Amino acid sequence: MNDFKFINGSVTSPLGFTANGVCAGIKAATNATQAAQANEPLLPKSGKRDLAVIYCERPCTAAALFTKNLVKSDTIYLTQAHLANGTAQAVIVNSGNANACNPDGMEKAEAMGRLAAQALGIDENDVIVASTGVIGQALPIEPIEKGVEALKDILSKDGGTNAAEAIMTTDTVKKEWAVQLELSGKTVTIGGIAKGSGMIHINMGTTLSFVTTDAAISAEMLRSALTEAADVSYNMVSVDGDTSTNDTLAIMASGLAGNPEITEKNADYRDFTEALTEAFKAVAKKLAADGEGATKLIIAKVSGAKDESSAKTIAKSVICSSLVKAAMFGADANCGRILCAIGYSGAQTDVKKIDVSYQSAKGGILVCQNGCGLAFDEDKAKEILLENEITIVIKLGDGTAAAEAYGCDLTYDYVKINGDYRT
Amino acid sequence: MNDFKFINGSVTSPLGFTANGVCAGIKAATNATQAAQANEPLLPKSGKRDLAVIYCERPCTAAALFTKNLVKSDTIYLTQAHLANGTAQAVIVNSGNANACNPDGMEKAEAMGRLAAQALGIDENDVIVASTGVIGQALPIEPIEKGVEALKDILSKDGGTNAAEAIMTTDTVKKEWAVQLELSGKTVTIGGIAKGSGMIHINMGTTLSFVTTDAAISAEMLRSALTEAADVSYNMVSVDGDTSTNDTLAIMASGLAGNPEITEKNADYRDFTEALTEAFKAVAKKLAADGEGATKLIIAKVSGAKDESSAKTIAKSVICSSLVKAAMFGADANCGRILCAIGYSGAQTDVKKIDVSYQSAKGGILVCQNGCGLAFDEDKAKEILLENEITIVIKLGDGTAAAEAYGCDLTYDYVKINGDYRT
Repeated sequence: MNDFKFINGSVTSPLGFTANGVCAGIKAATNATQAAQANEPLLPKSGKRDLAVIYCERPCTAAALFTKNLVKSDTIYLTQAHLANGTAQAVIVNSGNANACNPDGMEKAEAMGRLAAQALGIDENDVIVASTGVIGQALPIEPIEKGVEALKDILSKDGGTNAAEAIMTTDTVKKEWAVQLELSGKTVTIGGIAKGSGMIHINMGTTLSFVTTDAAISAEMLRSALTEAADVSYNMVSVDGDTSTNDTLAIMASGLAGNPEITEKNADYRDFTEALTEAFKAVAKKLAADGEGATKLIIAKVSGAKDESSAKTIAKSVICSSLVKAAMFGADANCGRILCAIGYSGAQTDVKKIDVSYQSAKGGILVCQNGCGLAFDEDKAKEILLENEITIVIKLGDGTAAAEAYGCDLTYDYVKINGDYRT
Repeated sequence: MNDFKFINGSVTSPLGFTANGVCAGIKAATNATQAAQANEPLLPKSGKRDLAVIYCERPCTAAALFTKNLVKSDTIYLTQAHLANGTAQAVIVNSGNANACNPDGMEKAEAMGRLAAQALGIDENDVIVASTGVIGQALPIEPIEKGVEALKDILSKDGGTNAAEAIMTTDTVKKEWAVQLELSGKTVTIGGIAKGSGMIHINMGTTLSFVTTDAAISAEMLRSALTEAADVSYNMVSVDGDTSTNDTLAIMASGLAGNPEITEKNADYRDFTEALTEAFKAVAKKLAADGEGATKLIIAKVSGAKDESSAKTIAKSVICSSLVKAAMFGADANCGRILCAIGYSGAQTDVKKIDVSYQSAKGGILVCQNGCGLAFDEDKAKEILLENEITIVIKLGDGTAAAEAYGCDLTYDYVKINGDYRT
C-alpha cells in the first residue's frame, strides 16, 4: 500500500476548506437550567461552543451514511435529499438540541440550511444539515440565525478546532485529525472532526462526523470508500448499545489536490480507502476511549473465526456485554463473562477451541484455553488490566477470519452522566 | 378462567415434596477470599447456604428449559440427558460455582447427581443437576459430598425456604412462591423457588428456577405449559442483556393432587397453564426488581402493535436500553431515549403514531404524543418516577397486539457489584 501519515490537523487541513464554531446559545435556549450559557461570548475561550460551519470554496463531490434508527431527526431526511445529487459545499451543525421528535423538525432543519446558504452565498441544496443533543424539544432558530451571521465572517483555516468543539455534547475531548498520502504523485489530505460519547453502537454508531478531503474523486467512489472504511471502524464501536436519531458521517471532496480524478476502483482508490480506513479506526478508538464515563479503551480482537461475519459478531458481542465492561472497570480478569458473551453472540464456533488472553502495555496473560478457565497469576492480571487500553485477545479454532471491535468500560460515571442528562 | 390464588408457600407446598438447603462451604472452597464461609455451620441462621436438594416421595413427570448460550455448563447437558424420558424425582443444586468452562465439568456434574441419588435411594437418571456461580473454576466435590449427607436427614415440608436461600448468588431477597387452583374439583398446588439478579436476559434469562406441583399431568403437556408460561414471563425479563451458561427452569409434577391426568390441551390444561403463567410473571417482576443494583422495577407495556412479535421486540428493546435504564435511575422523564429504543428495535412501526407516558403509584404523565416530545410538568414527572415501580406505557397506532417486558434501572451499584464479582 501507499504510505500515508497522520499529521496535526483538522477538517480544514485539506485544500479549499475553512470552518469555525461559536457559542450561539442553543443549549441555553433549549434548557432553562443551562441558562448560564446565555451569557457566554460568541467566541468563548474554550468549551460551550454549539454551532459550527464547514465551508468549501468550491462545490464538492459528497457522500454520507446515516443512522439506521427508525426514529430519525428531520435533519437526516433533509441532508439525504440534499446529497441525492452527490454534491455539497458546506456543513451547518449544532449541538445542544437534536431537532428530533419535534412537530416542526423539518421546518427548522430547512431554516438552518437556508440560513447557512444565504450567509455563504451558495445553493441551499448544497448544505449538509446536522444536529445533536436533547431529543423532543423545539430547536430555537434565533440563536442559529445570530450564530451563522457571526460565523460567516470568521471562517478560517485554523477554525477547524473550534468546529470540533462546537459539536461536542458529553464528549470530554474534542476529536479532530488529518492524514496525508500521495496519489499519482500529488499530495492529498484528508481531515475530519467527530463527536460521540454516549448513544454509540455498532450500527453507524457515529453520532456526528464530518470529513473533508482535497482528493479528486467521483461521488460514487467517495460513497464506496466511505462505506468500506466505516464498516470496520464506525460500525465496530459500541459504548452503550444505543443508536441515535441523528447519526451522520459525511464526506466532501474538493478535488483541489489535483490528482487524476478517481472514478473507478484503481490503485489510487485503494490507497485513498486504506488511508480513510486507518484514520476512521483511530477515530473509533477515540470515540470508545471517550465513551461516557469510560476510564479505559477496550479492544476485542478475534482471530481464527470461520468467516468474517462470525468474527465481527463475536467481537461486537464481547465489547457490548455489560458484565465484561463492568469487569474491565474493576480490572477483574474474569474469563467466564467473555466466554458467555461469545456463547450468546449468535455466531457458531467450537467452544472447546476458544483461547482468551488479556493484553496491555504491561504484557499479556492467558486466562482461558480450549474453552476452559485457567489458574493464573491474579496480581499480574490486575497489573495488566489497570492500564487504560486493554485488548481482549480471542483465538478461535475454526478458520482464518479476524475482526476488531472497540468499546470501553462501564463505570459509575456512565450511570451518573445518564441518570440526569437533561439537567 | 378458573380462579387461582397466591398462597404463602414454596417449592415444598405441593403434595409429595420436601427440600432443604445447607451451607456446604462451596464458595469457600472455590474462592480463597470467601474463606470466612468455611467456618459457617451447615445450617446457618441465615444466608450463606450454597447447596439444596428438592425431593419428591415418588417419581414425577418433568420438563425443563435451558439457556440458549452456546457455552453451557456440563450440568445442562447432564440434566437434558436425565430428562429425556420425562421423569425426575429430585433436584440437587449448588451456588458459588457454576461448574462451567471446566475440563472436568461433566465428571463433577455426574458426581453431584450420583451423590444425591445414593443419599436419596433413587435412580441417578432421575436427578436434575444444576449449578450457579463463578465460571471457569473447578467445582469442589468434598463439600457437596458432606452437604448431601447432611441434607438427606433434614428434608422437610418447611425446608423450601432454605432451598430458596441456597440458590442465591447476588440476589438480595430470596424468591419463593406458591399458587393454588381447582382442577376438576381437586385442589392443585404449584410452588417454586428462583434465583437471578445479574446475567439476566430475554432468552431464558432465568438463571435457576425450580417448580413443583402435585397436579397429574403428562410430561408432554408439562413441557408445553412450561414453554407457554415462560414465553411471556422469564423470556421477557432483562437485567443486563447477558445470558448465562447455566440457566435452567425445571418443573416436576407428582400427580398426588388426584386430578384426572392432563394429557391434552383441555380446560384443565388451560387453567393450569394460566396459573403457571401468572405465577411466572410475578417471579419475572421479582427477578427484575432484584436486578443487580436495581432501585426500581421497570415495566415496558406496549399496545397497539401490528403483531405480537413487534410488541415483544419493542418492549424488550426499551427495557434493555442502558440509556433508558440510567434515566429511570435518575427519575428523568426523558422521552427521546424511549423513542430511540423503539426506533432501533428492528420492529416496524409508524413513528408518527407513538404515544409514551410514565405511570406509577403517584399517577401518570404523557411525555410524547404522535412521535413528538411534549412539554410537561417536570415536578409531577419527577414525583411519578421516584416510585419503585414504574410502567412505561407505549401506545402504537398500528394494530391491537400487546406485550410487557420487565427490567430495572441501571445504577452505581450495578457497576460496583460487577466491577469485582469474584472477590
